[in-house]
Amino acid sequence: MKIVNYSYKGQRPQLGIVEEDTVSRISFEIGMLELIRRGVLPTKTSERHPLSDITFKAPLMPGKIVAVGRNYADHAAELGNAASGELPVLFAKFPSSVIGDGEAIQWDSADTTQVDWEGELAVIISKRARHIDEADAMNYVFGYTVVNDVTARDFQASEEQWIRAKSMDTFCPMGPCVVTRDEISDPHDLTITTKVNGEAMQSASTALMIHKIPALIAHISHFLTLNAGDVILTGTPAGVGKGMNPPRFLADGDTVSVTIDGIGEISNPCRAIDS
Amino acid sequence: MKIVNYSYKGQRPQLGIVEEDTVSRISFEIGMLELIRRGVLPTKTSERHPLSDITFKAPLMPGKIVAVGRNYADHAAELGNAASGELPVLFAKFPSSVIGDGEAIQWDSADTTQVDWEGELAVIISKRARHIDEADAMNYVFGYTVVNDVTARDFQASEEQWIRAKSMDTFCPMGPCVVTRDEISDPHDLTITTKVNGEAMQSASTALMIHKIPALIAHISHFLTLNAGDVILTGTPAGVGKGMNPPRFLADGDTVSVTIDGIGEISNPCRAIDS
Repeated sequence: MKIVNYSYKGQRPQLGIVEEDTVSRISFEIGMLELIRRGVLPTKTSERHPLSDITFKAPLMPGKIVAVGRNYADHAAELGNAASGELPVLFAKFPSSVIGDGEAIQWDSADTTQVDWEGELAVIISKRARHIDEADAMNYVFGYTVVNDVTARDFQASEEQWIRAKSMDTFCPMGPCVVTRDEISDPHDLTITTKVNGEAMQSASTALMIHKIPALIAHISHFLTLNAGDVILTGTPAGVGKGMNPPRFLADGDTVSVTIDGIGEISNPCRAIDS
Repeated sequence: MKIVNYSYKGQRPQLGIVEEDTVSRISFEIGMLELIRRGVLPTKTSERHPLSDITFKAPLMPGKIVAVGRNYADHAAELGNAASGELPVLFAKFPSSVIGDGEAIQWDSADTTQVDWEGELAVIISKRARHIDEADAMNYVFGYTVVNDVTARDFQASEEQWIRAKSMDTFCPMGPCVVTRDEISDPHDLTITTKVNGEAMQSASTALMIHKIPALIAHISHFLTLNAGDVILTGTPAGVGKGMNPPRFLADGDTVSVTIDGIGEISNPCRAIDS
């Protein structure tokens, strides 16, 4: 099932089920986070709209976002870093950075001039998870969505902790669809493609993840509780702007999109403000 | 006003107003986060209990916790670090690490043997704050509480990003009281005292903060949105265990308490599990 949070003609956002090129409103009024917490899948009503008539909203405001760094060897290498070793590199993105499809990634040119893309597969947790074994971990996955882990490389380079580089408002485009786990036969056999103004920058298989999803859930849940609706970002493959020669960063007026086969595409315009 | 989240005789937690040694239940059923979001102060009912008859719960589950590192020069020096420079050092703690007064700080001895204390003044945000000037910043403060920013020093030393060291379950004792802003005439003139088994380890004035509360709110809100109920941890003064010679860390059976004048004391037993 593909579930979206959408608005029709400016009405308040609601959840819908996407089939081909239409969305059907679900039969009760509820947000994605509460839907996941209740542990039931929705049923659709007869209220249908073509996808071209609706606006996608961010699918959910997670309780927390646990992100994984350097989880693709080629990406670690392009930034001159060692790839993740025995343990995943964890960091946080604040939920306040989440935006939906079509919303602008925005920054002040006086603050940063090195805003970069990172296309990633996002895993949405279905229920409270603590001390979960790898063998059991996939039972705690509600589904998947697409995230652009936008990063200010100048902040990331000048500050030990990445929270400001990673958590500025609008730096976590997410969605538009949440695809339930049953629809993806192998989450480690998906192609992630990131394009800037239509030009492919990243294109790699999730097969290249160093720490795979069950290992990430096992590791994280050994130390802290994952709750329903928490999101794990599984890392980005090679092809970020900072790794290019010369480096290329997002500019005012650019459009950046991340696509994952079978899940969807999140596309966002970029807006650099001169304050 | 001093507001607590408490349970009487195992009943479900509710908010109450503390006066001297009694708590009075408030007149409607609501959680602290929702109370802050509504922007109204509660009134009390005639249902009163002595503080000795109730159990304090964590005052709130924040939407996010923005923590500040190296914000006291003596503390930065004791760990061999430069003090915070022109910009505050920001990092995140996940809300899932929050516990209340009397709950155990807990870890697995196979994971970490360097669990350390950090007593801190916590600032609770009253309403959505973005691009706030220092001069206006205090208008976005709902109140204050006490936090122990518990840290696994071995993880902090071996991992670039501090999220695991700082966000393990139970690593953010908070409370018990939320004291509204009007009750604290100067939040930069309070004494923070941390004791382990009754022995004073940290004792310093919040006057020593390098980046003061208005500067922190201005800096953070320049980059990201602070929402009602978000919490800023303002940093810890000198006297952590790792700074001692020889270093001293929390051990199974210890009790650690953090007290801030006029706000309250959070006290937690420590439990090291051998898995």
